[in-house]
Amino acid sequence: MQTTAAAVTALIEEFAKLPGIGPKTAQRLTFFLLRSPADQTRRLADAIIRMKEQVITCSTCFNITETDPCPICASPQRDHGLICVVEEPLDVLAIEKTDTFRGVYHVLNGALSPMEGIGPKDLRIAELVARVQHSSGEVREVILATNPNYEGDYTAAYIAPLLRPLNVTLTRLARGLPLGGDLEYADEGTLSRALEGRRAFEG
Amino acid sequence: MQTTAAAVTALIEEFAKLPGIGPKTAQRLTFFLLRSPADQTRRLADAIIRMKEQVITCSTCFNITETDPCPICASPQRDHGLICVVEEPLDVLAIEKTDTFRGVYHVLNGALSPMEGIGPKDLRIAELVARVQHSSGEVREVILATNPNYEGDYTAAYIAPLLRPLNVTLTRLARGLPLGGDLEYADEGTLSRALEGRRAFEG
Repeated sequence: MQTTAAAVTALIEEFAKLPGIGPKTAQRLTFFLLRSPADQTRRLADAIIRMKEQVITCSTCFNITETDPCPICASPQRDHGLICVVEEPLDVLAIEKTDTFRGVYHVLNGALSPMEGIGPKDLRIAELVARVQHSSGEVREVILATNPNYEGDYTAAYIAPLLRPLNVTLTRLARGLPLGGDLEYADEGTLSRALEGRRAFEG
Repeated sequence: MQTTAAAVTALIEEFAKLPGIGPKTAQRLTFFLLRSPADQTRRLADAIIRMKEQVITCSTCFNITETDPCPICASPQRDHGLICVVEEPLDVLAIEKTDTFRGVYHVLNGALSPMEGIGPKDLRIAELVARVQHSSGEVREVILATNPNYEGDYTAAYIAPLLRPLNVTLTRLARGLPLGGDLEYADEGTLSRALEGRRAFEG
């Protein structure tokens, strides 16, 4: 016997397809919405639909945007000679939150991963090389800000030789102890990088 | 500068309003949907809208349903002389999953909580008493299956004297060690209830 409303079961199933949402959480979310005012629930549904309709990819940097070029690529206040190469739009969000970077971005749309079958053709690598090439010398520096893990390092190592002949400075984000971190609990990799990258004490 | 698409920010904010979803999880869910096929995303939005449109409350047991009376109340296969009183529709779902209960339900819509200002008028208590009264003796037993916590016990204790004059057996769910539990890690309350409720060994 179908003992729960089919529409409730359907929503539980849809929620459970989202990453990190198990069946129990999906149930909890569904029953929360069931008790919520109709207009709040409608706002969530509308926000999902609108996002899919309005969000496009910037044809210059491949970040998500509602206008092409995106506000960062279109801004004269940003330094277009400094490109920060990241894996995902979420990385752009994270860097923008620091409010310290005034350059522009290039979103690769992932990292090279032979294990998962993600090759150079799946990423915006050719577009990055073309972008630097066609800037007629405007691009001075490319920060290869892929993730500090195997795939990210591999991707940076793959891109570097393609850009080097174009006469740009290539950099990578500093590695070391995270702020507020505890030396005692740092993993060996992080600690050895922190030692390697030690800087003169200015105090 | 607005550096992320407004529609993305809007959806992150809507997700973050859900219980147990922090800003980081809201971001992750939003970017997951951004990468998902449009029809999967549309299904989630539709499921939310449909649930709010189609789900009503059964006028007999006050469980959520798409038909009134609900399939359980309408079923001749269920024992209408045995009513299981629970706090929430989720409790019905949990009991139905055990596939051992053949009676019907009564959903109170919460538990009495003087701290949160939830009184008898906020719950479907009067409706429960009327339901038993008007059954002309058909209801034999009422299981007061409110939660095994302070509010649940208080609610059961409040309802019991209202039903007792109506000549029905009143029961409460057994308390004891959970299946697969470990005596060593059981809290004192659970352990003392398990001792109190010990039963003859049939083995």
